[in-house]
Amino acid sequence: MNVVDATPSAVKQTAHGQPDASPELDRLYQNFEKELLVPLWTQIGDLMPMHPRSKATPHLWRWDRLNELAAEAGHLVPVGRGGERRAIALANPSLGGRPFATPTLWAAIQYLMPGENAPEHRHTQHAFRFIVEGEGVWTVVNGDSVRMSRGDFLPQGGWNWHAHYNAARAPMAWIDGLDIPFAYYTESQFFEVGRDALSPAEHTCPEFSDSERLWAHPGLLPVSQLGQQHPTTPLLAYRWVDTDRALNQQLALEDEGHAVTVSPGHAAVRYTNPANGRDVLPTIRTEMHRIRRGAATLARREVGSSVFQVFEGQGTVTVDDKQWQVRRGDMFVVPSWAQFTARCDAGQATLDLFRFSDTPIFEAVNAYRTQTLPA
Amino acid sequence: MNVVDATPSAVKQTAHGQPDASPELDRLYQNFEKELLVPLWTQIGDLMPMHPRSKATPHLWRWDRLNELAAEAGHLVPVGRGGERRAIALANPSLGGRPFATPTLWAAIQYLMPGENAPEHRHTQHAFRFIVEGEGVWTVVNGDSVRMSRGDFLPQGGWNWHAHYNAARAPMAWIDGLDIPFAYYTESQFFEVGRDALSPAEHTCPEFSDSERLWAHPGLLPVSQLGQQHPTTPLLAYRWVDTDRALNQQLALEDEGHAVTVSPGHAAVRYTNPANGRDVLPTIRTEMHRIRRGAATLARREVGSSVFQVFEGQGTVTVDDKQWQVRRGDMFVVPSWAQFTARCDAGQATLDLFRFSDTPIFEAVNAYRTQTLPA
Amino acid sequence: MNVVDATPSAVKQTAHGQPDASPELDRLYQNFEKELLVPLWTQIGDLMPMHPRSKATPHLWRWDRLNELAAEAGHLVPVGRGGERRAIALANPSLGGRPFATPTLWAAIQYLMPGENAPEHRHTQHAFRFIVEGEGVWTVVNGDSVRMSRGDFLPQGGWNWHAHYNAARAPMAWIDGLDIPFAYYTESQFFEVGRDALSPAEHTCPEFSDSERLWAHPGLLPVSQLGQQHPTTPLLAYRWVDTDRALNQQLALEDEGHAVTVSPGHAAVRYTNPANGRDVLPTIRTEMHRIRRGAATLARREVGSSVFQVFEGQGTVTVDDKQWQVRRGDMFVVPSWAQFTARCDAGQATLDLFRFSDTPIFEAVNAYRTQTLPA
Amino acid sequence: MNVVDATPSAVKQTAHGQPDASPELDRLYQNFEKELLVPLWTQIGDLMPMHPRSKATPHLWRWDRLNELAAEAGHLVPVGRGGERRAIALANPSLGGRPFATPTLWAAIQYLMPGENAPEHRHTQHAFRFIVEGEGVWTVVNGDSVRMSRGDFLPQGGWNWHAHYNAARAPMAWIDGLDIPFAYYTESQFFEVGRDALSPAEHTCPEFSDSERLWAHPGLLPVSQLGQQHPTTPLLAYRWVDTDRALNQQLALEDEGHAVTVSPGHAAVRYTNPANGRDVLPTIRTEMHRIRRGAATLARREVGSSVFQVFEGQGTVTVDDKQWQVRRGDMFVVPSWAQFTARCDAGQATLDLFRFSDTPIFEAVNAYRTQTLPA
Repeated sequence: MNVVDATPSAVKQTAHGQPDASPELDRLYQNFEKELLVPLWTQIGDLMPMHPRSKATPHLWRWDRLNELAAEAGHLVPVGRGGERRAIALANPSLGGRPFATPTLWAAIQYLMPGENAPEHRHTQHAFRFIVEGEGVWTVVNGDSVRMSRGDFLPQGGWNWHAHYNAARAPMAWIDGLDIPFAYYTESQFFEVGRDALSPAEHTCPEFSDSERLWAHPGLLPVSQLGQQHPTTPLLAYRWVDTDRALNQQLALEDEGHAVTVSPGHAAVRYTNPANGRDVLPTIRTEMHRIRRGAATLARREVGSSVFQVFEGQGTVTVDDKQWQVRRGDMFVVPSWAQFTARCDAGQATLDLFRFSDTPIFEAVNAYRTQTLPA
Repeated sequence: MNVVDATPSAVKQTAHGQPDASPELDRLYQNFEKELLVPLWTQIGDLMPMHPRSKATPHLWRWDRLNELAAEAGHLVPVGRGGERRAIALANPSLGGRPFATPTLWAAIQYLMPGENAPEHRHTQHAFRFIVEGEGVWTVVNGDSVRMSRGDFLPQGGWNWHAHYNAARAPMAWIDGLDIPFAYYTESQFFEVGRDALSPAEHTCPEFSDSERLWAHPGLLPVSQLGQQHPTTPLLAYRWVDTDRALNQQLALEDEGHAVTVSPGHAAVRYTNPANGRDVLPTIRTEMHRIRRGAATLARREVGSSVFQVFEGQGTVTVDDKQWQVRRGDMFVVPSWAQFTARCDAGQATLDLFRFSDTPIFEAVNAYRTQTLPA
Repeated sequence: MNVVDATPSAVKQTAHGQPDASPELDRLYQNFEKELLVPLWTQIGDLMPMHPRSKATPHLWRWDRLNELAAEAGHLVPVGRGGERRAIALANPSLGGRPFATPTLWAAIQYLMPGENAPEHRHTQHAFRFIVEGEGVWTVVNGDSVRMSRGDFLPQGGWNWHAHYNAARAPMAWIDGLDIPFAYYTESQFFEVGRDALSPAEHTCPEFSDSERLWAHPGLLPVSQLGQQHPTTPLLAYRWVDTDRALNQQLALEDEGHAVTVSPGHAAVRYTNPANGRDVLPTIRTEMHRIRRGAATLARREVGSSVFQVFEGQGTVTVDDKQWQVRRGDMFVVPSWAQFTARCDAGQATLDLFRFSDTPIFEAVNAYRTQTLPA
Repeated sequence: MNVVDATPSAVKQTAHGQPDASPELDRLYQNFEKELLVPLWTQIGDLMPMHPRSKATPHLWRWDRLNELAAEAGHLVPVGRGGERRAIALANPSLGGRPFATPTLWAAIQYLMPGENAPEHRHTQHAFRFIVEGEGVWTVVNGDSVRMSRGDFLPQGGWNWHAHYNAARAPMAWIDGLDIPFAYYTESQFFEVGRDALSPAEHTCPEFSDSERLWAHPGLLPVSQLGQQHPTTPLLAYRWVDTDRALNQQLALEDEGHAVTVSPGHAAVRYTNPANGRDVLPTIRTEMHRIRRGAATLARREVGSSVFQVFEGQGTVTVDDKQWQVRRGDMFVVPSWAQFTARCDAGQATLDLFRFSDTPIFEAVNAYRTQTLPA
């Protein structure tokens, strides 16, 4: 608890609206502490700032190094019931050593050795996988095997059974995003253990999951499934070939004179729930951004935090007073209300950035704000 | 960061799914730490429990003592720009000395001396006042003076200008509830300073605010205001006379054989936004509960936390393994997923409990759960 | 390849886009008729006008005459199973003698002799009663007796059992509004017969219905009922004392400088479902309008039709090229897109107009438009 | 005070709840007529039936004959401003010769000769085109050229500019569906004339429209367009290749044991607005159904009417007491609450049925019901 350090008498206000120090005030503050009370007037600057001042720090993790350490863990750390997953989380440097990339978001590299099986469980935390490189692992969701290949995005709404299996001859790494910190702070998590091993049928994986065969047709929904609610997406994989084409088409349409990009040279698609057009997960927004050669995003701030992973290309990213050259696989964090810009470096075709954020939480409680800054 | 303490070789899993200790593992963990990484497998029990295990503790604050200390602060601490409010917050014993009643909710006693003015400001945090006793203060919201009397409930949606003024000859205390901890953790707050003093016209307060005159007619809404959104309630006061009557009618209807109470002998009304029937604030649910003589609530758990204040009567409250006899003004905290029951003591007409909770947040992100336990 | 002027040379278009007459064309038209086909090009002017051109006519029915004829029916026509209700409907002069006030709305005077019982039934058509004068009848809705007094409004969502009973020594008349024509054209109606007689307990009526005791508290909703949907209002009576006060307050607030009226001197409240703030019925909007001495409404057109009843005062109403002096009980019709103005006559305190319309249908299918015309 | 048996003695009820005939009653009825009043008790059987009894009749139109007459019109009737479209509408045999397939739905064959241009206009009526055969026409919607090929579905939300152009060497026919009768009865239509001729750029048509390039990516939405409402679908073409694949996948998944069909052997997809997962148009539901060899749909009734067109295959359709053998292009009508079954004939691979209905209207006003009948 933080108190003021001064002196005198009746009730006079100091420069910053604090009472003058006195033995009586000291005793009052001691009584507050004894009674588990804290005054607003000593805390208001921290608690109620003029605008969000994030505890989190902008930070960059290099993919090479993440991969290296994950590979070492592949040799030293088993995957099985109890530990559940060989996932190694980004710990924002100013969030107390907790495995939280931002105050609300978890971002981790997960690593699976050939033949390994990450055992089935389910939890209310919402999750997704994004695959920056590799091949050969699949996720089994309620018995539906979902292939994971470079560029694919696999959302995983809360409370679905899931396991991962690596059938390839090589290890594979990918990233997991979850709302673990949000669920942790707000204390809303449930967890259940499932089967320890997959069934033989689940040891092979078709090219397309059942979910895709049922739900991945543009604008066409299965009549049999429309009588029920789908608060999280029933579509379990969004394939790179589709994402890439959508982004290319936006840039081509821009070239033809249509105002379909976020800003000149900056295309973006959002992964959405086909059943309602909303975010795939109630707490996490996920998008792929493509910035073309020589272009940059507008400088923006917004309420809430984001984690990015570079999917392809090289670029220069600025977050408040930090600036990095980034390349494939690199991950970085943009805290709430930090100013963000990304530019595609010269000589690159495009800079492709996968992004996830906690925006849906703020939209749901009417607290979202954004600001575009003059160039 | 918490690591495991053991020894040997290849990749063997310990009892709780942890790798065997080894110098290589130690070095790996050191590298994780250096690179700002944290493994899931050492943290999962804390991060992903089987059900919510709150960091917060059930705790009771006695109104007499709150009032006493607030009165002392009335003599020692000025109210003015900078400190903004003479508000003293409940600090949950296990939340690190922070002024947080629960992980998401702020609850404070606010105290105003005769003639004092708490200066105008606005913030995106949603707030309310509830008045357990006293008379003579009003809140001025965007120029609308709202009287505060025993039993009244005054919601205050985010980003509305507001000041408080005590025109009585006696000091007055009331409670403030806000989503300050939620906004703090999620980093979504904005704040602005308004006028330092009220206008002369605002130095008198009518019996009913403009907002009541416009919006407090049952089922009747002003046509002129229905073309706009009302994400927070436009009705700024819910008077005790209405709340009391609504609760009495529920119990009377129950006596006549209608299933209109929450459970036998337990009536409850929710304060709602007349424009849409939803909670008055997007992040805070507020309700008044009345338990009649000899009756008790069903034992329940739910996702999310609550703060209660006893409005009238005496009763026995059980929260997990704690039990208290409570009386007028006492405040207590029910953490997420804690088992809660309240009983009206013999010899009391009723036990009236004002309650606020963070439930709307969980409903908004599809994370709400509740469980009623066998008697 | 060229456009329209490349049409086959034999085909020439007449002034209004019609083909030249010819024996071949005659034969084609005969074949169309034989095959149950109709060309668009001969019908488009009627089917797809530039703006709504209503089949309905503005028309006024005098209350005195309605009452007189209803009283005669009271002596000649029984009320009972089969005929179900002694209701006499306004038949718009240009809707083919059908009992339709407008293409979508039914408006009728219903008349009950002392001691009479209109037997219980239910139907999916949404209904309401509005009482311009009289006392002593009640409606029993699912066993809940709802008193009907001057100025009261009683909505009746589809598929609720209901009966009417006159316990007074005098006959009583009131108006019924329903969406019968809409349900008739769209063919969506169900009907069921209930009990022929009320139970003895239903032969007395309390001052307030159970529904009011549970739901008519401003902004306060019963927690026990909030887990279910309420597509139609659960509040079964909106009392005149509340409506009158709400209108008076709007005019008083206007006098104090607040922009809370529809336009200067024109106050209006909408009857809404307290559970969601929406219209009481999914197909019918209901409002009470008060125009003060010397004031008039703005001239407006809107998509959809309305029926008005004068509740109090005298005024001048203009609908397109018709103009009437109106007084208590008079009913008139405003067709879709007709220009409407009402003025309170000099020497009158106010002109109070009850209004119902089909607006929610158009809002639901994104077809609502309105236009305010220059004075 | 007593109930119904206390009715005045002179009034006796006849068998069907009608008053006894008398000169006084005759005079009353004459006065009703003079005053533009109609009693409920003589009309209730027609107005408020036990369940929907449609004025419309089940009826079948053969595609060969439709095509033949449309081709004749192609030679006799020009297309141009005034007549606007060479569209020939199905007129339900029991709807008074009006061009209404059902009380709410318009269905027409439209026919365009080589080089013809159906001039640009817009209207609030919602529309779509479905192409059962042919190639070479495109629709230009707000300047976006949308190719029309066999199996394609082109929705057209109200108030969008549109024209049609036939660039092929052959005439082309397709069907138009609109909510013209609904808009006509409810009187909610607006219409505006646009350009008489297309621009040269619009005289060529790319394979995919801009709308498809922007919106036809499964689950992937353009971030730049998500800040605005999309009450009607922004995706202007749903291609057969996608629809066919979606249906095949449902049947294949069914073969693998998944409950993803409407009923055994009956697959169905709904055309939906990708921005919100709802129907493409606020008043019209559109679906493609595939019934496999030997299978049949369950027998069902539902509130609201449908129009079907056979897309492929041959089958047997039963609507109440009518039964037809149907084949490619044939169109038929299912009135409200009529019992409907379709069966794929032996020797056919599948029976593919395109269907449109007015269901969204009933869902929007809480009036939808359906009933599945025992086999």
